[in-house]
Amino acid sequence: MKVVIILGSKSDLEIGEKIRSKLKENFGIDSEIRIASAHKTPEKVLEIIKSYEKAVFVTVAGRSNALSGFVDANTLNPVIASPPISDKFAGMDILSSINMPSGVAPMLVLYEENAALAVAKIVALFDDNVRRKVEEYQRKKKEEIEKADEVVRYGNG
Amino acid sequence: MKVVIILGSKSDLEIGEKIRSKLKENFGIDSEIRIASAHKTPEKVLEIIKSYEKAVFVTVAGRSNALSGFVDANTLNPVIASPPISDKFAGMDILSSINMPSGVAPMLVLYEENAALAVAKIVALFDDNVRRKVEEYQRKKKEEIEKADEVVRYGNG
Amino acid sequence: MKVVIILGSKSDLEIGEKIRSKLKENFGIDSEIRIASAHKTPEKVLEIIKSYEKAVFVTVAGRSNALSGFVDANTLNPVIASPPISDKFAGMDILSSINMPSGVAPMLVLYEENAALAVAKIVALFDDNVRRKVEEYQRKKKEEIEKADEVVRYGNG
Amino acid sequence: MKVVIILGSKSDLEIGEKIRSKLKENFGIDSEIRIASAHKTPEKVLEIIKSYEKAVFVTVAGRSNALSGFVDANTLNPVIASPPISDKFAGMDILSSINMPSGVAPMLVLYEENAALAVAKIVALFDDNVRRKVEEYQRKKKEEIEKADEVVRYGNG
Amino acid sequence: MKVVIILGSKSDLEIGEKIRSKLKENFGIDSEIRIASAHKTPEKVLEIIKSYEKAVFVTVAGRSNALSGFVDANTLNPVIASPPISDKFAGMDILSSINMPSGVAPMLVLYEENAALAVAKIVALFDDNVRRKVEEYQRKKKEEIEKADEVVRYGNG
Amino acid sequence: MKVVIILGSKSDLEIGEKIRSKLKENFGIDSEIRIASAHKTPEKVLEIIKSYEKAVFVTVAGRSNALSGFVDANTLNPVIASPPISDKFAGMDILSSINMPSGVAPMLVLYEENAALAVAKIVALFDDNVRRKVEEYQRKKKEEIEKADEVVRYGNG
Amino acid sequence: MKVVIILGSKSDLEIGEKIRSKLKENFGIDSEIRIASAHKTPEKVLEIIKSYEKAVFVTVAGRSNALSGFVDANTLNPVIASPPISDKFAGMDILSSINMPSGVAPMLVLYEENAALAVAKIVALFDDNVRRKVEEYQRKKKEEIEKADEVVRYGNG
Amino acid sequence: MKVVIILGSKSDLEIGEKIRSKLKENFGIDSEIRIASAHKTPEKVLEIIKSYEKAVFVTVAGRSNALSGFVDANTLNPVIASPPISDKFAGMDILSSINMPSGVAPMLVLYEENAALAVAKIVALFDDNVRRKVEEYQRKKKEEIEKADEVVRYGNG
Repeated sequence: MKVVIILGSKSDLEIGEKIRSKLKENFGIDSEIRIASAHKTPEKVLEIIKSYEKAVFVTVAGRSNALSGFVDANTLNPVIASPPISDKFAGMDILSSINMPSGVAPMLVLYEENAALAVAKIVALFDDNVRRKVEEYQRKKKEEIEKADEVVRYGNG
Repeated sequence: MKVVIILGSKSDLEIGEKIRSKLKENFGIDSEIRIASAHKTPEKVLEIIKSYEKAVFVTVAGRSNALSGFVDANTLNPVIASPPISDKFAGMDILSSINMPSGVAPMLVLYEENAALAVAKIVALFDDNVRRKVEEYQRKKKEEIEKADEVVRYGNG
Repeated sequence: MKVVIILGSKSDLEIGEKIRSKLKENFGIDSEIRIASAHKTPEKVLEIIKSYEKAVFVTVAGRSNALSGFVDANTLNPVIASPPISDKFAGMDILSSINMPSGVAPMLVLYEENAALAVAKIVALFDDNVRRKVEEYQRKKKEEIEKADEVVRYGNG
Repeated sequence: MKVVIILGSKSDLEIGEKIRSKLKENFGIDSEIRIASAHKTPEKVLEIIKSYEKAVFVTVAGRSNALSGFVDANTLNPVIASPPISDKFAGMDILSSINMPSGVAPMLVLYEENAALAVAKIVALFDDNVRRKVEEYQRKKKEEIEKADEVVRYGNG
Repeated sequence: MKVVIILGSKSDLEIGEKIRSKLKENFGIDSEIRIASAHKTPEKVLEIIKSYEKAVFVTVAGRSNALSGFVDANTLNPVIASPPISDKFAGMDILSSINMPSGVAPMLVLYEENAALAVAKIVALFDDNVRRKVEEYQRKKKEEIEKADEVVRYGNG
Repeated sequence: MKVVIILGSKSDLEIGEKIRSKLKENFGIDSEIRIASAHKTPEKVLEIIKSYEKAVFVTVAGRSNALSGFVDANTLNPVIASPPISDKFAGMDILSSINMPSGVAPMLVLYEENAALAVAKIVALFDDNVRRKVEEYQRKKKEEIEKADEVVRYGNG
Repeated sequence: MKVVIILGSKSDLEIGEKIRSKLKENFGIDSEIRIASAHKTPEKVLEIIKSYEKAVFVTVAGRSNALSGFVDANTLNPVIASPPISDKFAGMDILSSINMPSGVAPMLVLYEENAALAVAKIVALFDDNVRRKVEEYQRKKKEEIEKADEVVRYGNG
Repeated sequence: MKVVIILGSKSDLEIGEKIRSKLKENFGIDSEIRIASAHKTPEKVLEIIKSYEKAVFVTVAGRSNALSGFVDANTLNPVIASPPISDKFAGMDILSSINMPSGVAPMLVLYEENAALAVAKIVALFDDNVRRKVEEYQRKKKEEIEKADEVVRYGNG
């Protein structure tokens, strides 16, 4: 199964690469990055998504996000939308990523590390190695907090 | 030159028909209504917009509005976006109709009557009959206000 | 693999049942509904999510949604958050479902039918029957739009 | 046909000049910049808009944007409103550019480059040179994306 | 000195009449209602405001409120803006009544009774009868609260 | 120790009485309702709050809530602000209850039943009867959820 | 007649001084600055406002603005609220300055220069020198725009 | 009685320490800081809150704040939520701290110094030393304002 990160523009490349490196480092998952715009190169988007059999897609597009819904409506595969949070309009263009018409269901996950985690949990449903990586990842997160608590308690001393 | 109103869903039909009747009644402009979804039937949208040479498109789609930008990016013709105002999220999904990426430029006009007026002004650039209709329409709007003022002044009596 | 819909309160039961019936009717997927509160009965939530091996969880909780993140952080399984849209505060408590801390990644999908579709696409990664159902569902959605376009074109006369 | 960019204040001059240069560079369209305030010099605004026969107007005014509606209501010509996005009040004074009364229909297009594109598409309805420029512009935008995809795929290598 | 209530449209007449009756009943102040649109009949607005020497103007206009700033910028007299609160866009088009450019300073007062009070306080600066009425009005408001407190305390019994 | 519910207006009486009955029924706590406005009868507010030695105050005032901060700044006692949620401006006048200047610290709790609970928890710090009532109340809340889960599981049948 | 600028905190001093200098420079109006908090020193606020017979008050207070309504409800004189625009919460605590209860009617004017202008227009109702200054001020504002237009037209050359 | 500040993450440590130092300096109250996440280490949170008999809890957690409601629902003790104000989404994730389900009642107080004051007022109900400190604190706040007024009046000279 493939993991494919589709960016609406090359200006989203930094985000895409951060998701890819989090997938690899935290969960040992390889992924590909592609760039195509639902507005400007829709046939290219369709060609990309049809070139993969089973896959998890991650879509990254800012401003009015047509890409996530467009990909989702044209594939049998699950789609995770992970748009950047705009500093314009109080970030409310996030609504373009979530208020979908009937029959269009990309799944929103903000922040690169969290998008990678959501992908990993889907992959983990069939890949026991990844499942162990998710377990380890969650355990580390817990330990970080427990350690921080210990440090601060001594600091209370 | 054609005027084509593209609806993202049949649930937008009432809006589409109101725009069409305003175009006809106020400006003597014929128009066609088409239904196609940028998310779910993108090839159909492309087929529709490529089937018209010179045209003004009006796009109507609620929630996350991919249609307006999608049509605009794939046609040489001007596109007027006239989405319904949602009562969810304080209508802020309007941002999906205006916060476009570079190279995508649908023109937002709220309310059916105003969308029809915007179309008419573009058509009026080459059609003197329509131009006279716009002039008449604007004069009537002014007269309505002037009459209302007269009525209220006597009411001040 | 199980699909489990967890509601934060019995007041969410109508939503839960709508998701369940959409899962069954549209995709032939059985699911269970459970009720537990991350705020008020956290041990119960933990007990529920630990009682399923491989599963997709759908979480439904209004107002400040602690449930979705809580479930996600404590399971290896993917979690789809599908909160009701509040009519208070312009629905902005949706942010409690999406602005998650690092390491917590529920996936937001609004509207019951869409939540069911998102579940089905994940299940379809291993279940070819469900995959065919998703395909059929998407085809029907397209046909509905194409039929609506035909009707409206004849209506254009 | 003239293209006239009307600014509500000299503080909008940078925006006006960017629209003008985008019109010239991308579409070979000449335009004029004028400065007049609907609030403070309304007669001047009326004088300006009446001094042009057929034209496309672009209006640029920040804060409470009276200019766009004022110009639109007093001309037969189409008006494109392209206000700056304020960083105050989450940019919500954009509503003053779109929530127009009946009979007032400026067309909102955000960002200078997009405003220029919207103008060009209207001009292109009668000017085949401009129409070819729009075509070329859209093709370049597509090619940029396709090239970016190629680069990133090799980067996947 | 005159008090003149200018409405942007006859649809604002109910508001205008409520302000007028509050002015009369609470403060014994006569006022006139006029209707004129800054967008559609700007010369008429100018004619109205220039026909009064010393006056307090109250402006009432919904959606994008050009009227209040337009009146203010073209008169030496104080202007009180009292727009209706829209139920669209969470009422945020109120920003069109307050976020004014430099040199334009209508004074916002929401709700008809309060707009009347604000007018009365300005008039009271030179009219001792009105000043006594304001005093009486404020005393009644205080007494209402004190009586309500007494009632509720006995109710505590 | 007294519990005193101060309402800014008699229009808030229904809310005040609901808080009072929740205090009595759920926690056996008696309370008094008083009405006084920080804007219109500030001396009365000061007189009320100075007439109680040790107390918990609950303040209820809609629109711009001056009452909660005013009471808090003028008493040594803790103050719980429980304003109604306005349906105007998306309820955002809630900010007037929380964005306090330095040295003013009313504690916001929305909804009557929750305000009563917050009061009870403070009282419970010295009153073991009330503390047992809080315990019982929380246990009932948990049991309601557990029962609802049982019902729905049988319903899963 | 006095003009008195009341600040809720010394952190508002820069704003207060800017209003004062604009009053003096643009309109030749003297004013006093006072500092008192409606929350923390309400008796002081009452003492201040009662120490002036006829006056125009300008109130400046950030965050939850109790001061403007408090002053207004306790004086026969007109009150202009000119709060700073917060960069928190998208400036929406402005609602605390405008959504007043019945019988409380401070008049909102944003920005120091505009607040000074609003004061001047009220003073100008009885002071012909100030009235001439307002006229001159407005004329200069118009001339600035007309000059800017001339400059930019030559720039078009 | 203990005062315990619970942070959802070590990234909130600066806030926690500021609350602790304000408690100590302004009110002579000792407090402990603990770190635990309602999402990631819920059992740890439960263990912490159950380890204190009578206490006031202060909870600090950004983004979607599950911690405050979680702590509140699982303790008999009062809970003060004092989340950081996010600069994303116009700070509207504050709603996750206030829009609680029935039976969950953390009390929101923004800003560290104010959170400390709210704690102190609760503690002051049984501790006369703290009560005197609160009195002194409030008196100082008043004096600061009175001094600032004196300074600015001489400055008026």
